[in-house]
Amino acid sequence: MTGRDDRNGRPDGQDSQRPGEFDLIRAYFAPLARDPGSLGLTDDATVYHPGEGCELVLTKDMLSANVHFFADDPPEAIASKALRVNLSDLAAKGAVPRAYLLGLGLPDDWTAVWLERFACGLNGDQAAFDVTLVGGDTIRAGDRLQISITAIGELPEGTAVRRSGGSAGDLLYVTGTLGDAAAGLRERLDARAFDHVGLEADELRHILHRYLLPQPRVALAPVVRAHASAAMDVSDGLMADAGHLARASKVDLHIDLDRVPLSPALRRILAAERRLGLACLGGGDDYEILCLVPVDKAAAFEAEAALQRCPVTCIGTASASMDKSQGRVILQQAGVDLTDVSPDGFRHF
Amino acid sequence: MTGRDDRNGRPDGQDSQRPGEFDLIRAYFAPLARDPGSLGLTDDATVYHPGEGCELVLTKDMLSANVHFFADDPPEAIASKALRVNLSDLAAKGAVPRAYLLGLGLPDDWTAVWLERFACGLNGDQAAFDVTLVGGDTIRAGDRLQISITAIGELPEGTAVRRSGGSAGDLLYVTGTLGDAAAGLRERLDARAFDHVGLEADELRHILHRYLLPQPRVALAPVVRAHASAAMDVSDGLMADAGHLARASKVDLHIDLDRVPLSPALRRILAAERRLGLACLGGGDDYEILCLVPVDKAAAFEAEAALQRCPVTCIGTASASMDKSQGRVILQQAGVDLTDVSPDGFRHF
Repeated sequence: MTGRDDRNGRPDGQDSQRPGEFDLIRAYFAPLARDPGSLGLTDDATVYHPGEGCELVLTKDMLSANVHFFADDPPEAIASKALRVNLSDLAAKGAVPRAYLLGLGLPDDWTAVWLERFACGLNGDQAAFDVTLVGGDTIRAGDRLQISITAIGELPEGTAVRRSGGSAGDLLYVTGTLGDAAAGLRERLDARAFDHVGLEADELRHILHRYLLPQPRVALAPVVRAHASAAMDVSDGLMADAGHLARASKVDLHIDLDRVPLSPALRRILAAERRLGLACLGGGDDYEILCLVPVDKAAAFEAEAALQRCPVTCIGTASASMDKSQGRVILQQAGVDLTDVSPDGFRHF
Repeated sequence: MTGRDDRNGRPDGQDSQRPGEFDLIRAYFAPLARDPGSLGLTDDATVYHPGEGCELVLTKDMLSANVHFFADDPPEAIASKALRVNLSDLAAKGAVPRAYLLGLGLPDDWTAVWLERFACGLNGDQAAFDVTLVGGDTIRAGDRLQISITAIGELPEGTAVRRSGGSAGDLLYVTGTLGDAAAGLRERLDARAFDHVGLEADELRHILHRYLLPQPRVALAPVVRAHASAAMDVSDGLMADAGHLARASKVDLHIDLDRVPLSPALRRILAAERRLGLACLGGGDDYEILCLVPVDKAAAFEAEAALQRCPVTCIGTASASMDKSQGRVILQQAGVDLTDVSPDGFRHF
């Protein structure tokens, strides 16, 4: 929020009667900047003072209307999703979220009402996740909204959990349930997508909500840090992300399909049309944590996760990789090796 | 660079035969990530270890095609400009640049050749300014390129230079020359903009180049830190940014127009058409540093700036603000108060 006024020097020469960037920052974003280093977003940059003996974990996710959300989603939900996908990355590394910078590219038809609701969404999540806005930039971005958030987390030096720390013998855990958000996206794209499946009204609401608003597992961060050997969040889908984890840790991952945690909605979809259910399971946008935990830490991991009221499920194990250079994912059901699934997802089903 | 593959779960359902995000990161951006914490951009987030006793300075500027640059500018120059406007903010706070996260929203018609040249531009600037890519995200952003860079600088704790530290009696300095970039933008928008002024070919090249490629005053950062009481970079134009400085420091700033450093091109424009020259001077995109320096530090400031081969010019002084709550900018020439210029720029000329 450096206060550059985009009405000056624009190649497209446009000007607008709406408030300029300064007014916009003052009205909507300065109230969100509660860290002294951010000086109410009135300076060129923010000063960030890391905690004693802490390392920072930095992540940046960009979201674009009609790619990562629908332009007509509630502004509060768009704001929350943009922040939460970043908080999910921090949680997967075991980091406590602290602050974020917001880059906002407004479409030509932005309105003050929209922006007020967007800021309101951020405000609610700042309270929920104990983070604060510390800086950023607002520009006009043309035909569609663009959001670019850089989130900052902290953890004790040397305790970050990478994708690469897993070993043969570790247990593979996942939080929550998988596949709901991808089902919700299908329903958004085609309101008749699940007509033949006979989903209940509350099941439909569940999948739509899961797509609209991820629930980052922030509370699990210290548990991940204490017990996981490798971790990441599931954003591309179970099989694709398990593939990333397998390759980074150089292990094969054996997943038991019957143990993968599914919501009642996804269970119903899978029962009615296996291919569609598996496609949802591989669809991504889950923002659950997938992690490897050494066997001797598994009981403590489960107990501490329960204390944080975060459901975790063991869905498989890691074994020595058959091919040293390329960890694989093997999906099994009732002891049968379903297929040598491509790390890219379920596209071979 | 969390490796989310935007081919999955896109509301617009598009897919492409071009390389996916993973390949793109591997090919073009992983080679730019030289900090061990970034793990070659293969993890969800990057671990950043601040230097002992250091504070971080964070800044984020977003740039959009056809707003901050022309879509047909050389990709190397677009990359450089996006990085450099951020480095300029860091330098103005006295911070040494260390690292950056890159958010890249690609238009639908991106090509591998374009991206290779873009990465090449970043690579050159990484060497020139001793910074490294540590993370980010790549998405498809629709009709026009969007770039969102978060830059990280460091400085000894408590030494950041704010806009707000100036006092009555301080001298007002600026680096380089002003107004060239805004003139270059006018020439880009209308190749006949300066026909009546009679600019020489090398003067035209100079203003065009100044618009295309800012030169952030990174080398001046330690000098700013050691001697300036308040500082910022000039991105909105001299008068607007002097207004920001005046208000933050609660002083009136008296600027002598005859002392404002001008290139031969801008001098010629100002002589031929005063109104046009002043409009360029107020147009912004200069990325020079504007700072207040206490009188007893001025000689050392000038000497150390000269050592860094950074031209600095004293263009005025700060006085006690007539109105305590709102510092003003007073532009003078030959001792005559030209006008009570609005802090918004030269629009009252």
